Amino acid sequence: MIYLDYSATTPLIEDAKKAMISAMELHGNPSALHTPGHEAMNVIEDAREEIAKLINAQPEEILFTSGGSESNNTITNIFAGEKIAVSAIEHPSVLESAKLRCEPTIIPVNEQGIVEDIHDYILGTKLVSIMLANNEIGTIQNIKELAKTAHESGALFHTDATQALGKIKIDVKDLDVDYMTLSSHKIGGPIGIGALYIKKGVPFQPFIVGGHQEHGKRAGTYQTVNIAGFGAAAKYANNHQIWDIYDQKVRPLRNLLAERILKEVPFSSINSNLETALPHLLNCSFKAAEGESIQLYLDAEGDVIVSTGSACASGDGKPSHVLMATSGDAEVAHSSIRFSFGLDTTEADVDHVMEYLPGIVKRLQGISTIKIEEEA
Amino acid sequence: MIYLDYSATTPLIEDAKKAMISAMELHGNPSALHTPGHEAMNVIEDAREEIAKLINAQPEEILFTSGGSESNNTITNIFAGEKIAVSAIEHPSVLESAKLRCEPTIIPVNEQGIVEDIHDYILGTKLVSIMLANNEIGTIQNIKELAKTAHESGALFHTDATQALGKIKIDVKDLDVDYMTLSSHKIGGPIGIGALYIKKGVPFQPFIVGGHQEHGKRAGTYQTVNIAGFGAAAKYANNHQIWDIYDQKVRPLRNLLAERILKEVPFSSINSNLETALPHLLNCSFKAAEGESIQLYLDAEGDVIVSTGSACASGDGKPSHVLMATSGDAEVAHSSIRFSFGLDTTEADVDHVMEYLPGIVKRLQGISTIKIEEEA
Repeated sequence: MIYLDYSATTPLIEDAKKAMISAMELHGNPSALHTPGHEAMNVIEDAREEIAKLINAQPEEILFTSGGSESNNTITNIFAGEKIAVSAIEHPSVLESAKLRCEPTIIPVNEQGIVEDIHDYILGTKLVSIMLANNEIGTIQNIKELAKTAHESGALFHTDATQALGKIKIDVKDLDVDYMTLSSHKIGGPIGIGALYIKKGVPFQPFIVGGHQEHGKRAGTYQTVNIAGFGAAAKYANNHQIWDIYDQKVRPLRNLLAERILKEVPFSSINSNLETALPHLLNCSFKAAEGESIQLYLDAEGDVIVSTGSACASGDGKPSHVLMATSGDAEVAHSSIRFSFGLDTTEADVDHVMEYLPGIVKRLQGISTIKIEEEA
Repeated sequence: MIYLDYSATTPLIEDAKKAMISAMELHGNPSALHTPGHEAMNVIEDAREEIAKLINAQPEEILFTSGGSESNNTITNIFAGEKIAVSAIEHPSVLESAKLRCEPTIIPVNEQGIVEDIHDYILGTKLVSIMLANNEIGTIQNIKELAKTAHESGALFHTDATQALGKIKIDVKDLDVDYMTLSSHKIGGPIGIGALYIKKGVPFQPFIVGGHQEHGKRAGTYQTVNIAGFGAAAKYANNHQIWDIYDQKVRPLRNLLAERILKEVPFSSINSNLETALPHLLNCSFKAAEGESIQLYLDAEGDVIVSTGSACASGDGKPSHVLMATSGDAEVAHSSIRFSFGLDTTEADVDHVMEYLPGIVKRLQGISTIKIEEEA
């Protein structure tokens, strides 16, 4: 299997598996005041330190949650009933929860998915939430500049770093954000555990209440096993500076695939900006070929695993809100697929994809009811 | 180590570990439409079936959450702004979230922790929430009767079955409840995964929003590994009818410990009703001896692991709200400890406890500033 859907979820790395299997032997509820409780709590605090280190935060600024979606819901819950501003290409757990709980202004993006001048959109808002990097096309925002503008306007700043974590170096102090959403299963850790960076002193309200865990900030028994796995994945990232590997090893492979697609697949286009997007992600469209069909044939014929837009949002039949926001073209959205590479992806994997992709796309274009021009 | 804190969290059973380690090899996001996604989804649906079977529900009535606390918060969120009635001895994730989001009436309990006539408390309420069995003293409520009364009054009925699951046979159809909270890590499954039974057709509102997972009922990537572990624990419970083992093997051991404590430890009293409480749980108090000190000495000297009240609520220095509701006596609450047995607990474990407990309690009573009568 050539797995190129790392942005949907990464396979568990060996270090995370080992840490989890080892933590399975811990018996105590980490909140308990007895020896097995303390042993479990030590594992949790070690993990918290590694995760804090990964974004240059203090351990006490890291709150464990059940994942990125809960972290994002926790943010909109803090600002319930308030005016906030969010970008048009946020993850649905920001967009939909903002619409449910707050009064959001939607900040548009340009064709590359970049949020430009936000001044006009943030007047009178208490919070601005703009993701660090987009999950579908990989656009990285200038968060430092955006946070500065938000602060000058009197708003706090949240960034969803779910997709960016590990792929690029992140420093919360340099970015000067107030809240940041983190997820474990995009960096080789387990699913079901995430975190929220909460800068010391900024407003906070617990979302899941009724327990003194996390100093009263989040009720629910501490998940020793999952936290151990998240911590191990963060430690691996810290020790190996994996953002450098993404830049130096993964980016050229991703660029190679993009180049070959443009050259070898008719009527193809690239939706990700190869200069400025995340190094491991490639979103592309194929005129008159349905993304979902390409995905299914790549899987069935080539054992190549890719995604159509975001797996989180797939299956509802609607065109991707991200590609609609950037291109405004439902056909581009419907004909798109997303390749996302991992640290283990090789040039042979790219070759393998290119053995299958051109034929599949041409076949689909051949049976399409959409007219396409003569092949270039 | 003699671990007698199963009500705080159970060690993972072997079947759950195996299922989790096996699920660690699954790579796909279960929401994805490709082969590894389908493989992961199959594991999830198998688990859902076992969990449904455990309470005689339909699989489509089972919603996965991050645990009992999230399940309980999900319930109060459905009834946000409404009048509801909850018992005084609910878990804080019901009590506190009800106070935060709803207009709750608190239903008192008798000295045994039993909810008696609720008619006067539920008039005009949309929901009645009463736990199936209490986590601190083990009181089992007559949920069938209470749900009938609630329905006659036009209210829906929720029961938090976190502690009861596996310990007694549960049948949602027979009880006729509308919602039920379930947790994995009290039946030998992992922490970080729970469920909510939602009877077909009753009102529902998602709590974590922004994803189509669980048919739009709960956003967040499916936790394949944890769900596999929960499913395996449920399967073990179903296959071994563990409630019968609790009744026939664990209950006599628990009763033996109670008997020996009353006989061998001066000024001791039992807060759990041995006839009607959960079969594995024993809450007792020791006049003029601090529960926390007993816990620490049992751990340090005897390697015996017990809890003071609920581990979820411990550490805040306040007397247990459950023992305050039943006894009204802060001294009873402060001097209490909870033993909770597992399927592997033996008579030798009881003997071991009784080697240490009387001496520890007498020593603490000897240095106490609280006057106690002459020893009986």
